[in-house]
Amino acid sequence: MLSASSLYAAIDLGSNSFHMLVVREVAGSIQTIARIKRKVRLAAGLDGSSQLSEEAMERGWQCLRLFSEQLQDIPPEQIRVVATATLRIAVNADSFLVKAQQILNCPINVISGEEEARLIYQGVAHTTGGSDKRLVVDIGGGSTELVTGKGSQTTSLFSLSMGCVTWLERYFTDRHLGKENFAQAEEAAREMIRPVASVLREQGWQVCVGASGTVQALQEIMMAQGMDERITLNKLQQLKQRAIQCGKLEELEIEGLTLERALVFPSGLSILIAIFTELNISSMTLAGGALREGLVYGMLHLPVDRDIRKRTLHNIQRRFAIDVEQADRVRQLAESFTRQVSNSWKLDDLSRDLLESACLIHEIGLSVDFRQAPQHSAYLVRHLDLPGFTPAQKKLLATLLQNQVNGIDLALLSQQNAVPPRVAERLCRLLRLAIIFSSRRRDNTLPAVRLQADDDTLSLTLPTGWLQAHPLRAELLEQEVHWQSYVHWHLTVV
Amino acid sequence: MLSASSLYAAIDLGSNSFHMLVVREVAGSIQTIARIKRKVRLAAGLDGSSQLSEEAMERGWQCLRLFSEQLQDIPPEQIRVVATATLRIAVNADSFLVKAQQILNCPINVISGEEEARLIYQGVAHTTGGSDKRLVVDIGGGSTELVTGKGSQTTSLFSLSMGCVTWLERYFTDRHLGKENFAQAEEAAREMIRPVASVLREQGWQVCVGASGTVQALQEIMMAQGMDERITLNKLQQLKQRAIQCGKLEELEIEGLTLERALVFPSGLSILIAIFTELNISSMTLAGGALREGLVYGMLHLPVDRDIRKRTLHNIQRRFAIDVEQADRVRQLAESFTRQVSNSWKLDDLSRDLLESACLIHEIGLSVDFRQAPQHSAYLVRHLDLPGFTPAQKKLLATLLQNQVNGIDLALLSQQNAVPPRVAERLCRLLRLAIIFSSRRRDNTLPAVRLQADDDTLSLTLPTGWLQAHPLRAELLEQEVHWQSYVHWHLTVV
Repeated sequence: MLSASSLYAAIDLGSNSFHMLVVREVAGSIQTIARIKRKVRLAAGLDGSSQLSEEAMERGWQCLRLFSEQLQDIPPEQIRVVATATLRIAVNADSFLVKAQQILNCPINVISGEEEARLIYQGVAHTTGGSDKRLVVDIGGGSTELVTGKGSQTTSLFSLSMGCVTWLERYFTDRHLGKENFAQAEEAAREMIRPVASVLREQGWQVCVGASGTVQALQEIMMAQGMDERITLNKLQQLKQRAIQCGKLEELEIEGLTLERALVFPSGLSILIAIFTELNISSMTLAGGALREGLVYGMLHLPVDRDIRKRTLHNIQRRFAIDVEQADRVRQLAESFTRQVSNSWKLDDLSRDLLESACLIHEIGLSVDFRQAPQHSAYLVRHLDLPGFTPAQKKLLATLLQNQVNGIDLALLSQQNAVPPRVAERLCRLLRLAIIFSSRRRDNTLPAVRLQADDDTLSLTLPTGWLQAHPLRAELLEQEVHWQSYVHWHLTVV
Repeated sequence: MLSASSLYAAIDLGSNSFHMLVVREVAGSIQTIARIKRKVRLAAGLDGSSQLSEEAMERGWQCLRLFSEQLQDIPPEQIRVVATATLRIAVNADSFLVKAQQILNCPINVISGEEEARLIYQGVAHTTGGSDKRLVVDIGGGSTELVTGKGSQTTSLFSLSMGCVTWLERYFTDRHLGKENFAQAEEAAREMIRPVASVLREQGWQVCVGASGTVQALQEIMMAQGMDERITLNKLQQLKQRAIQCGKLEELEIEGLTLERALVFPSGLSILIAIFTELNISSMTLAGGALREGLVYGMLHLPVDRDIRKRTLHNIQRRFAIDVEQADRVRQLAESFTRQVSNSWKLDDLSRDLLESACLIHEIGLSVDFRQAPQHSAYLVRHLDLPGFTPAQKKLLATLLQNQVNGIDLALLSQQNAVPPRVAERLCRLLRLAIIFSSRRRDNTLPAVRLQADDDTLSLTLPTGWLQAHPLRAELLEQEVHWQSYVHWHLTVV
């Protein structure tokens, strides 16, 4: 199988933390085998004249000694090390870098803001689904990248000298979370953004995607509070009010905000609010990857697929030896059912896309065991890295797969936050019926089923005599009417 | 990938239930995709003159109509249908079989008791680990098979006309669980066994393996009650006393005994006690498969491996793309550590074998995600079908994998019942150290570690300067000392 020669490493020496990511390629997808992060706080070691302190450098070298132990075993051409904002700025960066390269025994590339922006965009393009005309936002410790692009190509890119660490030091020096602190921080950020706003807006975007700890923290907060996962200006303003109520940084307490992310959360929040306002962003979702993923995918020379989700589902089918013909049979039938009820049930593109995705991998649990296969399917989907799907979408998929057969857990369907509970219920019903009718694993035994929806009542019409001729599916259908009735879903079979 | 043409079906028309098993072959291992069972109670339809009633036949045909719907899609040469005791005996079996074959549209083979015994033995040989000189016991509804064999070859085989259904009807007619009922049932069973006992004992065995619902029920009872999984005469006698205390079949209540298995449990128990007594069996474990598995493996022409577990682990490594070099590195180091502490820690063959197995698949969780990989490893191992490993052994493996790194869950280590808790703790400690020292994924960086055990205190001796030269592993070791100290394990690093 795979040995050290198939390992790849990406290291970034950021202003707040140093990160190392070690991966191996498995069947066209990337498997993480090590991830080490150390809060080196390099930016905090910069003095007024951009001189990096000896202590900060020592913290950095100490961290690199750890990294180097693992790095020695990876072919040099499969390693990328980049340094960003703080080492771009520090006037004595060279004295840090000379020793750092000795420790790592490989070259460190201090990349420009534009190169950083380009790499971040690549990382997003390889890991994030949705429309391919996008705006990417990454708020780092010492710089913020704003990039527009289409598919794998960037169309405009900017790296601004503001970050959650520098903004913390500048506008929240006294650790006070006052209205004025936020106002000043926001205004300063808006001034940075204003000059580039028109170019970005000219390029335009259909989706806006955020990377970085700030956006991740927001994601976790919204998940913990049961909100849907789209970040909007309204939600950001509410969180700002909540922070102001807390008064001081050490008293900041927001459900879902972890200690690790709290320190730079208010400063990151103020920058994000400024970005939303200046660029008139309606909503943003979390990226599946950024700088380090950009480095890794760059080394692996994997093409950017137009449809990340399709690639992901295809990889999953292959890795878990899913019966693809059967998956496609269920998908087609679910699609036909969806079309038949489209007058009454108006399912949007995203919902239909997620139903299709659920069909394509619904049998993944069989790779664990036939007993409790739906539970295994849900477990795997909940925990697998699925580039192109947001956390909320993964949760919906897991919920649908858990409910693909037998008893229905209504609570699960309403706990996910990718689509409204009622939509989730409808997707669930369509999936279940498609699975029952496909249970023969054969195309030519599908009956001319007619499915009609009248509000939440579903009626199935089957050709005369079909049930008698197919006792197994007749039994499954009969049970299905019961399962659905237990949760007050009306299904009639004619 | 795989389509209907790669499906295989095995059906057995037993005296108590009809079963259908549908599988597909994935990378040399068998994946179950459907399993249907119906309690047809054919034996209950036999009258005094061995005439099968019309009602019983109708129940059977009804069930076969269900099976047939799925069966039509499988190539005829990949289907095996066998009928056992009741259809061997019934004088009007032909009238049942003619219609049954029409329904299924494929031939039904009424097999002799010897053929049944041979197939059961094959099913066991393909799915059950341990020494390869074995005695196999299968208590069916209408017959009981006793087989000795070595590897894939049977050396003697017997099919006796007693089963848990017939014994229920004969000795527990009034559903009373009296001392006398058991005594009569046991004595009658011993009389059946006596004539064949000497031949079986002459052939001899190193392990004794039981198939059938009775043995499975015992397994479930012992698991639920936290006992180790070996069935002994002593445990059987205790359960009999418990059943007698309950007094009546409908009041039978034993922790871990399911309603489904309760009806024929006392009769099966009496037969098993008779077998233990007449053959002087010291202990028995549950088989991984029997008749249906024998049919399936027979169709697939898979050879019986000398070492079922090795084949299983190899398949798992391949299916989940485990880094086999790394797995082997950890295995070798764990083995070396085991040797070094062997004076103080006397680990038996089984324990060492299970430690080795844990090493070979410890990274399986990475196939799900890097985050919480140990938890994913444990989940997969707990639920995967692992031919050659008993349920208790699977649970131990899962427990070791869950505890391979970070915090240690002592409760888990003592909840498994494959080895004593203290042995599990020692295996866990050896595994963890082997993983830490192998973390570079390279052979030539392993230091000349010396490991010594003095009762439960472990001392690691490393070459001078090694820790300074390897800061990553030095850090891991330092943390490991802490983790172990939290659960009062003494580990010193010199």
